[in-house]
Amino acid sequence: MSVYSLKTTDKVPEPTLRRLPWYLSTARLMKGRGERYASSTQLARQLGMDASQIAKDLSFVNVSGRPRVGYTVDELIDVLERFLGFTERHYAFLFGVGRLGGALLADSGLEQFGLEIVAGFDIDPSLVGHEINGIPIFHTTEFPRKMQEYAGVNIGVLTVPISIAQEVTDMMVDGGIQAVWNFTPFRIRVPENIVVQNTSLYAHLALMFNRLNLNK
Amino acid sequence: MSVYSLKTTDKVPEPTLRRLPWYLSTARLMKGRGERYASSTQLARQLGMDASQIAKDLSFVNVSGRPRVGYTVDELIDVLERFLGFTERHYAFLFGVGRLGGALLADSGLEQFGLEIVAGFDIDPSLVGHEINGIPIFHTTEFPRKMQEYAGVNIGVLTVPISIAQEVTDMMVDGGIQAVWNFTPFRIRVPENIVVQNTSLYAHLALMFNRLNLNK
Repeated sequence: MSVYSLKTTDKVPEPTLRRLPWYLSTARLMKGRGERYASSTQLARQLGMDASQIAKDLSFVNVSGRPRVGYTVDELIDVLERFLGFTERHYAFLFGVGRLGGALLADSGLEQFGLEIVAGFDIDPSLVGHEINGIPIFHTTEFPRKMQEYAGVNIGVLTVPISIAQEVTDMMVDGGIQAVWNFTPFRIRVPENIVVQNTSLYAHLALMFNRLNLNK
Repeated sequence: MSVYSLKTTDKVPEPTLRRLPWYLSTARLMKGRGERYASSTQLARQLGMDASQIAKDLSFVNVSGRPRVGYTVDELIDVLERFLGFTERHYAFLFGVGRLGGALLADSGLEQFGLEIVAGFDIDPSLVGHEINGIPIFHTTEFPRKMQEYAGVNIGVLTVPISIAQEVTDMMVDGGIQAVWNFTPFRIRVPENIVVQNTSLYAHLALMFNRLNLNK
């Protein structure tokens, strides 16, 4: 049994999953400063959080702290990266090469976190047949064929206008996409076995504006 | 008293705030189809949600439904846009013109939701003095002076490497920024009166990967 066996089959609470990247980035910073060990107390101090919360969160990943010294920084980074899925390669198609979609194709930053967008789809003749950042853009009608051609794609990034968000989602799901990363402010509906991750920048903007108003 | 007086001083629950953009996008779609009225039952059917939840959420915004017909689509759009802060102009500086930062400058889509990024800051000599999408990029050291020059900027968009995320946040806050839109996976610390909105694409990726693994 590997030291790094991952308990990914356990259901990890979403708040924990949201906090794990904080511990990863802090561990990376500590490594950058040449530090070798990180206790949950040290992590807590740097993050302004409760040490017991951190210890509890880290109990979901198989990393074993040692008394006094805590976790090894290298092991913490390694285990968190694996646990969060950043070391695996995931392949995605992107639907809707507008402003946001085009920006996501151009930003290869997602790759270092394990997401590789291998093709974009659009119906705009000025885009189809072209490339952004080396990523080809096909006509949306070609999707089912490309799904056969590119093996291993199971994620669809949704950056289309809201008026066609559901229609494109249905097409994706019919074609075999298993997870939709939804950047639209539209609540898409999918069968139960399909994963939806909503990342609406506009919803986040609204939250921020609202809190700013409360502070006035 | 205006018909559209907004209750922005009430504390609206965050889950409600996250759902309001769904109702807005659905109302926009209905308007596009020429529909004039939207009941919470109709909204519920289109969104696959509970009608009572929608009615409860909408009770936080001052929109009055009429028996049988429901809300006027136009009024619903207008009130939600105002309530969510999308009709007001908010001005922001962006810190860190890397891949993601550059993409956000290039994407003018945020403007239609009320956020105008008026300048970027970086230390890279190949960026300073240039423009992206008509938005000037200044050296980070110029920030305090630019804060005086550009009146009304109170939001800082944070897209720097994690190693300097806290340092740049402290500088922003010292300079008078009141809300930080944090795109880094780093947990920044701010004084109590400063708003932080975390939008870590990587944390969302991790959530999606994790759920995909559970489905395997």
